[in-house]
Amino acid sequence: MYQLLSDLSIIEVSSFVASPTAGLYCAQMGAEVIRVDHKAGGLDYDRYMLTKEGWSLAWENLNRAKKSVALDLRSGEGRELLLELTRKTGQAITNLPEQSFLSHAAMSEGRPDMVSVRIMGWHDGRQAMDFTVNAASGYPLMTGPAEWDQETAPPVNQVLPAWDFITGAYCAFAMMAAIHHRTMTGEGSEVRVPLGDVGMGTLGNSGSLAEMLYRGGDRPRLGNAIWGALGRDFISKDGKRFMVAVLTTKQWHAMVEAFDIAEPIAALERETGVEFPHSDHNRFVHRDALFAIVQGAAGALDYAAIAERLAAAGATFERYRTMYEASTDPDLVTNNPLFGPSPKNPSGFAYPATRSFANIPGREAGDPLPAPLLGQHSEEVLAERLALSSGAIGKLIDAGIVATARA
Amino acid sequence: MYQLLSDLSIIEVSSFVASPTAGLYCAQMGAEVIRVDHKAGGLDYDRYMLTKEGWSLAWENLNRAKKSVALDLRSGEGRELLLELTRKTGQAITNLPEQSFLSHAAMSEGRPDMVSVRIMGWHDGRQAMDFTVNAASGYPLMTGPAEWDQETAPPVNQVLPAWDFITGAYCAFAMMAAIHHRTMTGEGSEVRVPLGDVGMGTLGNSGSLAEMLYRGGDRPRLGNAIWGALGRDFISKDGKRFMVAVLTTKQWHAMVEAFDIAEPIAALERETGVEFPHSDHNRFVHRDALFAIVQGAAGALDYAAIAERLAAAGATFERYRTMYEASTDPDLVTNNPLFGPSPKNPSGFAYPATRSFANIPGREAGDPLPAPLLGQHSEEVLAERLALSSGAIGKLIDAGIVATARA
Repeated sequence: MYQLLSDLSIIEVSSFVASPTAGLYCAQMGAEVIRVDHKAGGLDYDRYMLTKEGWSLAWENLNRAKKSVALDLRSGEGRELLLELTRKTGQAITNLPEQSFLSHAAMSEGRPDMVSVRIMGWHDGRQAMDFTVNAASGYPLMTGPAEWDQETAPPVNQVLPAWDFITGAYCAFAMMAAIHHRTMTGEGSEVRVPLGDVGMGTLGNSGSLAEMLYRGGDRPRLGNAIWGALGRDFISKDGKRFMVAVLTTKQWHAMVEAFDIAEPIAALERETGVEFPHSDHNRFVHRDALFAIVQGAAGALDYAAIAERLAAAGATFERYRTMYEASTDPDLVTNNPLFGPSPKNPSGFAYPATRSFANIPGREAGDPLPAPLLGQHSEEVLAERLALSSGAIGKLIDAGIVATARA
Repeated sequence: MYQLLSDLSIIEVSSFVASPTAGLYCAQMGAEVIRVDHKAGGLDYDRYMLTKEGWSLAWENLNRAKKSVALDLRSGEGRELLLELTRKTGQAITNLPEQSFLSHAAMSEGRPDMVSVRIMGWHDGRQAMDFTVNAASGYPLMTGPAEWDQETAPPVNQVLPAWDFITGAYCAFAMMAAIHHRTMTGEGSEVRVPLGDVGMGTLGNSGSLAEMLYRGGDRPRLGNAIWGALGRDFISKDGKRFMVAVLTTKQWHAMVEAFDIAEPIAALERETGVEFPHSDHNRFVHRDALFAIVQGAAGALDYAAIAERLAAAGATFERYRTMYEASTDPDLVTNNPLFGPSPKNPSGFAYPATRSFANIPGREAGDPLPAPLLGQHSEEVLAERLALSSGAIGKLIDAGIVATARA
């Protein structure tokens, strides 16, 4: 792990994807992230995929490099221990409701410089998850084959929980922004990030909301075509599918050169009276004719030849892979320094483990760490952070307030 | 804007989505973000959607609340001015290649504590954009109707450039993590974030990579069903489509109560010999039977009644909207404090403007600011940051090295 945040301890009270992701990114940058769970495990403890023995592969990846404390969070005593931990460390991330025992007010008692980041559903308190935010956003009704009838076509849900992952990264940012402010001024902050607002705000930031209002209606389904530019999936003679993206003059020339299609392109320019090298607009408007020319050339070549030509010309392209193919691809995984050797995962299953997305020349990335066992660090953290004696911790364990690792 | 980062100035040399997004999030938290472009506009200056007069609605939303400096970045003198600006401010975000004039080495000359964040394509230097990373990730071949034949089904691209937005938020985080480290130690950092690694790393973090390797093959297409839990789109008697998500015992009971389906559920439990309230696994395995029961009940009710029942029971659900509907929805936009009144946008078109996703009780959110005109702050920034006299700036303008706002 990089040690950019090695002076920070963060309490994480989390479940599912967004909130654990925020903690994960901080842990991968060297923060001590202490995930505190109810002693039976959080709501996400059994999240698919499960191994035969019942270990969650989702959990052990989203909680890599963290510590685990397990408490009876239904008891007043367990809750008070958690609150004390947040007050001692000074920063917390959670997706528990503000109306729960873990309110910012409770965490900041005697700790006015507390920084908390709370993921909510919608801004008005309504529940939301990635799947429901996505339904509201409009994207599912814009996704899928262009030839589907606009009136009757079903929604197509995205498989990637994109709103969760955007929210997780944003919350890690918001946490660091609030900590920066505290470093400069001494002031704490209560930061609330509604998952639904990340969805609607992204509609705003991307210009899509303005686009809808300017047009006064919906954008038609474009299938796999890139909106406002040129790009789509094509298929080679040997049946390999690949994506080509053309959003710049350079990318245009590269594609034309790679497929040796200057002549039909020139003919199309004469026919339409427009030029293509310098205009996203022209390329987008005439995309069907351009797609036909590219697919004609692609269909006559095997993918290996296409890839060689596109790479040599400097085009931006990629072959579609199944996720299993991607997961076993040497370029993407095995030989990619993003992935390190498998640590001793809770599941016992070994596979390439993810480092931080960021790489920092001149700093030591180190090998990825495993996720903890549930409660693995209960005793250590309570002793170090709350200065509890081993006798006191023993009593809490006997009383069922504190749990330690199964194993 | 919140003023958490008001002591920071960040130089942004950007195009498209990921890199401008990172700057946008910082600007919405009060940082002075100075976007420096080639004087004719960056590669994204004409990004769709365009108004009739040719203003990009994408650009003016992704660059809200920033300042704009326009330089001749093809000239040595313009490049040196940009490098000087990065050295004076001490932090920069860019998607220019490391091999360009804007290398970390050049920016950190005389500024050893420089923090730069650079978005790359793939880790090995190959080009990538959101669309091509997505093709490699495996998601497009997992998306779309479950009934499509797995062998011949086409990829379904996601319309949301999710990898761009995850990368943008992550880069804002990485920038703040590196600044935090500098505040604590005085050391600068060169941070590189490959867009492709955000994609592959997300496969890793989500557990999907481990899942593929554990199974030794691909996950089948599930259509709109939630992987490993219960949830899907349903349709009401009056033809409204909605999503229900059940990942907890509470959500399960809420759905059963709202649709008054305890009896058929009990019958299914007897028939299958499993219980549903406490097991994602059982709900997922028997999803088709459960979907049929829910759809049967949903199909007998109008959506207004369904929504009332689901809300009263505490279920997690949402109606699918088209993006135009979403953009004009009172709950989502008009009455949502995420959106503020329209500032004077470059396009002249007025519409709700996005604040930061984070809201911070007790701090002033303020009204959203507009994007700058290209070059609007060239003179101000060169005078303030580089202490150039108005005479010197005038000469640079006359020489075509510096450009000021059109309009």
